[in-house]
Amino acid sequence: MKISILKNQLVQAIQNVHKAVSSKSTIPVLSGIKMAADEQGLHFTATDLEIGIETLVPTLIDDEEIVQVKEAGAIVLSARFFGEIVRKLPGKTVEIEVKQNYLTIIRSGKTEYNLHGLDHEEFPRLPQVADNQVFSVQSDILKDMIRQTSLAVSTEEIRPVLTGVVFALKNGNLKFVATDSHRLATRESIVEAPPELEFANVIVPGKALNELGRLLADDDSLVDVLVSENQVLVKMGLTKFYTRLIDGQYPDISRIIPSTFKTGLTVNTKELQGSIERASLVAKENDNNLVRFNIKHNRLEITSNSPDAGKYSEPIDEIEVTGDELVIAFNSKYFLDALRVIDSPDILIEFTGSMSPFLIKLPDNPRYLHLILPVRIY
Amino acid sequence: MKISILKNQLVQAIQNVHKAVSSKSTIPVLSGIKMAADEQGLHFTATDLEIGIETLVPTLIDDEEIVQVKEAGAIVLSARFFGEIVRKLPGKTVEIEVKQNYLTIIRSGKTEYNLHGLDHEEFPRLPQVADNQVFSVQSDILKDMIRQTSLAVSTEEIRPVLTGVVFALKNGNLKFVATDSHRLATRESIVEAPPELEFANVIVPGKALNELGRLLADDDSLVDVLVSENQVLVKMGLTKFYTRLIDGQYPDISRIIPSTFKTGLTVNTKELQGSIERASLVAKENDNNLVRFNIKHNRLEITSNSPDAGKYSEPIDEIEVTGDELVIAFNSKYFLDALRVIDSPDILIEFTGSMSPFLIKLPDNPRYLHLILPVRIY
Repeated sequence: MKISILKNQLVQAIQNVHKAVSSKSTIPVLSGIKMAADEQGLHFTATDLEIGIETLVPTLIDDEEIVQVKEAGAIVLSARFFGEIVRKLPGKTVEIEVKQNYLTIIRSGKTEYNLHGLDHEEFPRLPQVADNQVFSVQSDILKDMIRQTSLAVSTEEIRPVLTGVVFALKNGNLKFVATDSHRLATRESIVEAPPELEFANVIVPGKALNELGRLLADDDSLVDVLVSENQVLVKMGLTKFYTRLIDGQYPDISRIIPSTFKTGLTVNTKELQGSIERASLVAKENDNNLVRFNIKHNRLEITSNSPDAGKYSEPIDEIEVTGDELVIAFNSKYFLDALRVIDSPDILIEFTGSMSPFLIKLPDNPRYLHLILPVRIY
Repeated sequence: MKISILKNQLVQAIQNVHKAVSSKSTIPVLSGIKMAADEQGLHFTATDLEIGIETLVPTLIDDEEIVQVKEAGAIVLSARFFGEIVRKLPGKTVEIEVKQNYLTIIRSGKTEYNLHGLDHEEFPRLPQVADNQVFSVQSDILKDMIRQTSLAVSTEEIRPVLTGVVFALKNGNLKFVATDSHRLATRESIVEAPPELEFANVIVPGKALNELGRLLADDDSLVDVLVSENQVLVKMGLTKFYTRLIDGQYPDISRIIPSTFKTGLTVNTKELQGSIERASLVAKENDNNLVRFNIKHNRLEITSNSPDAGKYSEPIDEIEVTGDELVIAFNSKYFLDALRVIDSPDILIEFTGSMSPFLIKLPDNPRYLHLILPVRIY
């Protein structure tokens, strides 16, 4: 293999695949990035066997030569050394040449590195994903769906299914659900799919989705999602993202979400976020970051206290309250997590009593729903 | 005590004294910040008994009311809670009122905190420093002197004197020296001092100097430095910084610094820094980050290698070399530390053989000197 490539494109490609590199595998080749040069350009692959990322830097972009392939071939280089080295190279272009025994020469400006590479034949092939179950979705919408649900996945391995976000598709409506059994987030969106395409219980690991979210562009370009029994493959332009799925049956959440409410209020998102953040400062010493709402007509009072630090109180006046007065307590971390991924200026909160889960809804987006379980106060 | 203060001034004052708060003291009051209100304004003090910082927020700045003292008094509040709370307060002004049992009410906008305070009488008084040994120096120069020497202090407690920077003053010339016995940094500057004022062996802890460096403004305002037997006090406008000194006799370094050299070269600072950084990427696996210089006439070649990763080489051509050819190896971390605090476009390096310490000098500032011990190569 012998190629030259623009440095900024090389840096970007490594950065794209880098998160799939295994950080603790005992298989040496998995701590590397595979590069393969052919007539299309330079292909980069990394995988930790849970997720895999593949990207192509093409020979030409808009008639500008990006990669020049002087000799086809492939090599695996240590992601740690290679990534650090490439970022620090002094020149505008980088030449990579593989010699005998996987010795790889990297030249840029007057700099020359001789790196020990690994046999690309030992690098695992990424799985083939059948393309009979495919839908398309706007990149920024998929990114948003991930952001608004993945925060609610469980970090505990006791119930593996809860460490993922469950995907379901019906009548062109894609639905994401995640819950760690203390809170639940759902988000839906209409996508481009064949009318008969339908699936459910596709459980994608939360960690994989966070990496995917990082790769997704914040624009309206279309992304193809291929769903198979064991894998999901997401195609974003020249980059492909694979993840294995989580085995098991996701719990039925339909009965958890209340359909009526006894107390409802509309409040400014940022104002409420600021107040709960201030309340949480003196709620830290408690195991569950307990913050209280005292809801009266036209008034929401936020309070917290800690035996060590002291107490906090702040009213938000002149808000729209319907239904009963209520006192309710909750883990402020869960509420703040939810508020941080909401872009709407106002939120609706619907309560059905101080011991029942309450709902956070968006006036301008009925496709988003967040549920939080309160904490019993004695 | 009852006062009101502009929030941004309160945040700034807490930030100024915060680094002197003890993070692991068993004396509760030392984890707090003392506030005292009098006719001057609001005084803030923090100390961990090693260093102490005191700052005053005056009642007026340029005729604008900053602090309004409604009732004089004092209180100690937990630095952790108080600092976090103040940053998040919603209003432009903050009202602080101390009630019975040190209960302290903090109000801003509609927010109200009730914090448990501590008795200010239990807070240690900062030491009195005699003002018979005083000199004045520009704030930015003192900051620079600290930056260029403190990097060479030892982090090992075996020889406590080496964990400090030693100050000496003679004929109005202030000199800082630091060494960890692998490298040595010195920096001198003319300061404003009485002609007869002279001292030596004033060993200031490196950690304290780094905190002082953070507080020093990057401008030409004058700073007063009071030197006593056990303490140094630095007065910067309304802020005072105290530190205890390190007991003991600093080693005589005068014989360590070579006065002649056999090989000399002038090289561009950034170009050399870039090359040593690139070299150090594959020198990491070695215990001592070994990088080699191969100096020929008009040419400096920088190389490194690691059994795991591979090797690096890069020439810097057309440089000015005088004297003998030379091969020398050194710990690249020490060289990079020195280069990072040099602002001059070029440096001079003077060698006296591959086993002797070499010097880094600045063509435009004879008052700076850095010495590095080479590593033996077999």
